[in-house]
Amino acid sequence: MLASLLAPNEIAAVPALAGFRLASLCCNLRYRNRDDCLLIECAPGTTVAGVFTRSLTAAAPVLLCRTHLAAGEARAILVNAGNANAFTGQAGIEAAWACATALAEALGCTPEKIFPASTGVIGEPLDYKKILAVIPKLVAGLTDEGWHAAAAAIMTTDTFPKQATCTAMMGGRKITINGIAKGSGMIAPDMATMLGFVATDAAIPAPMLQQALEKANAASFNCITVDGDTSTNDTLLLLASGRAGNLTPDERDLAAFAEALERVLIDLACQVVRDGEGASKFITIEVTGAQSDQAARRIGLAIGNSPLVKTAIAGEDANWGRIVMAVGKSGEAADRDRLRIAIGGVAVAAQGMRVPDYDEEPVTRHMRGREIHMAVDVGVGQGQARIWTCDLTHRYIDINADYRS
Amino acid sequence: MLASLLAPNEIAAVPALAGFRLASLCCNLRYRNRDDCLLIECAPGTTVAGVFTRSLTAAAPVLLCRTHLAAGEARAILVNAGNANAFTGQAGIEAAWACATALAEALGCTPEKIFPASTGVIGEPLDYKKILAVIPKLVAGLTDEGWHAAAAAIMTTDTFPKQATCTAMMGGRKITINGIAKGSGMIAPDMATMLGFVATDAAIPAPMLQQALEKANAASFNCITVDGDTSTNDTLLLLASGRAGNLTPDERDLAAFAEALERVLIDLACQVVRDGEGASKFITIEVTGAQSDQAARRIGLAIGNSPLVKTAIAGEDANWGRIVMAVGKSGEAADRDRLRIAIGGVAVAAQGMRVPDYDEEPVTRHMRGREIHMAVDVGVGQGQARIWTCDLTHRYIDINADYRS
Repeated sequence: MLASLLAPNEIAAVPALAGFRLASLCCNLRYRNRDDCLLIECAPGTTVAGVFTRSLTAAAPVLLCRTHLAAGEARAILVNAGNANAFTGQAGIEAAWACATALAEALGCTPEKIFPASTGVIGEPLDYKKILAVIPKLVAGLTDEGWHAAAAAIMTTDTFPKQATCTAMMGGRKITINGIAKGSGMIAPDMATMLGFVATDAAIPAPMLQQALEKANAASFNCITVDGDTSTNDTLLLLASGRAGNLTPDERDLAAFAEALERVLIDLACQVVRDGEGASKFITIEVTGAQSDQAARRIGLAIGNSPLVKTAIAGEDANWGRIVMAVGKSGEAADRDRLRIAIGGVAVAAQGMRVPDYDEEPVTRHMRGREIHMAVDVGVGQGQARIWTCDLTHRYIDINADYRS
Repeated sequence: MLASLLAPNEIAAVPALAGFRLASLCCNLRYRNRDDCLLIECAPGTTVAGVFTRSLTAAAPVLLCRTHLAAGEARAILVNAGNANAFTGQAGIEAAWACATALAEALGCTPEKIFPASTGVIGEPLDYKKILAVIPKLVAGLTDEGWHAAAAAIMTTDTFPKQATCTAMMGGRKITINGIAKGSGMIAPDMATMLGFVATDAAIPAPMLQQALEKANAASFNCITVDGDTSTNDTLLLLASGRAGNLTPDERDLAAFAEALERVLIDLACQVVRDGEGASKFITIEVTGAQSDQAARRIGLAIGNSPLVKTAIAGEDANWGRIVMAVGKSGEAADRDRLRIAIGGVAVAAQGMRVPDYDEEPVTRHMRGREIHMAVDVGVGQGQARIWTCDLTHRYIDINADYRS
């Protein structure tokens, strides 16, 4: 498959990270001739945090992860691509549990320390014996390297692997955060994300880790949309091995960690949008002047999810009337007569109407680029949000009209 | 433009209706060589009811209609196609008011009895002098006939005119209900519709008329979606001239009227879906077993608005896992382990998983047809709803990528 038009030119190399080993291989669940199974092993004592889809039809591995999170400790993440193990009934739960048990035995830990994740077709029974069969080989193949191979092993309709890395100082020690993610369609992680796995060598107790993850997630994965469809399998896990040797973090350390974590998550989230199914334009929507940050986010998502806005952008048409429509349908407070809209930094509407002497020329030039910027001030308060999305093109329909065949 | 693949083979002839006269012509606002301006005149004493978009960026004619509705009486509806007069500031209000005043003068009534409506591009100033210029000719051309021409004059991206008619008995007298509508894209009338104008010769006081309209609207226009985008101009008006000569309606009369009205509105609403931009499949979604009717409607709309469900149907792929996903993201109560899904009358999923021995063959055959039926029981209560929508095809993108050019 050709890479997305918006694929990054360079992919940041993700270094080895103390306390983590990886292995990926092909277990023939759905794909041939490519890895579709990933194991991330972490050192004993690694703390874990997670956020998940709030879908009422959440997949079996999500249900297991939620239970396992209670203890706050992880020894491994086990991922398969091609089958979501969602809406597979009690058999689905048993399949995920069987894999966790077998892997726990191989690693010498309890099954509660294994975090399973799946992505792919919904409703197909998971042929988990294919996963059981490769567990010994996965464990034997664990190495310090392999983050790039890991990012590739979890892809489905993705056209490029998504990875990011960042460092920060905590208590005088350098710590590193590595992350990988997958996702391309069914992207509207209202409360979580598609699959994202982030690891750090910092020492951070589980409750603090969870708090940091929820905050950074709210400003990253929760602010992207490709098609407004929320997955049954959204999972974002954060592991902290403590091998950087920092002391128990104080407030300043946690702030430094939070900033670095947000940078990694935004990087990954924007890579997911750049690989949005059929995407040809990367769109940033800045909403200001809303009643609250939450209201600003809803307005931004109403714009970012509007098929009319997205097709206009695909057609390079600065049809800003559709932005007005989307603000109006969001249901959030907005003052029609104070609404301001700018595209590519050029004011197009203000005070309830088109700006006087509006010159569409520079806006049209901006629309022809790959990176589209919209700023919308709704004129009622201080709330703000930034949303990232992509356009809606013929390619999206091509990809999704026959995904299963 | 070629008619929609789902266009009805036959269009019901709409008869003349006592108390109503119509005229339509071309005022050159946007279109050439076709009518784009419509006048519906009604006899003095005609009562009126209306429901409108709840968009916060509602158009100028919607704001005027809301005010005029307070008195409950109408002498005329004046419609233009091609320019929505939305987000046009104070100038937009003045433009709508100027047209209402000029028409009121020509008809010898107060401007409050004129109900303006507009549809087309958002944000362009309305060149209302072109409308003023044709008002004398419109008034001079009023005739009893002309419902079909009226339905054609209000089209924008529509590929066929939408009209319906129905009769009922009230107090021993036959009454008739005529209706026309337009709409093809930006269709998700959360609280109202695109433009719809319905007229009856029955005598019904305005408050009863309003009640009947709201109820029938809830089961018709409020249950359709093409693209999930709610218009700034949605307007549905119902006029009752009283020329059928029935007495003040009793409860049984009102029930008969309500039933006939609902039939006309569902007919028109489904015609709007059949002209959904780029539609190739007409989809009926029956939701049962929800916590409330409102919850059922939200679940139905979550399915009907999902681009992944709509593209799968365009591709004739019975990818029912995406229905599970949409139920899950709706946020409404559903019991994963009691969820039942049938496509074309064939059970595909039950008790939290695919039915045993699922045979996709008959479902695949059903997916190849033009009329797709889905039944979803979410297993928690008695709430139910029926939603109508269409698939998402390449043609939708073609139409909307360059609507303004």
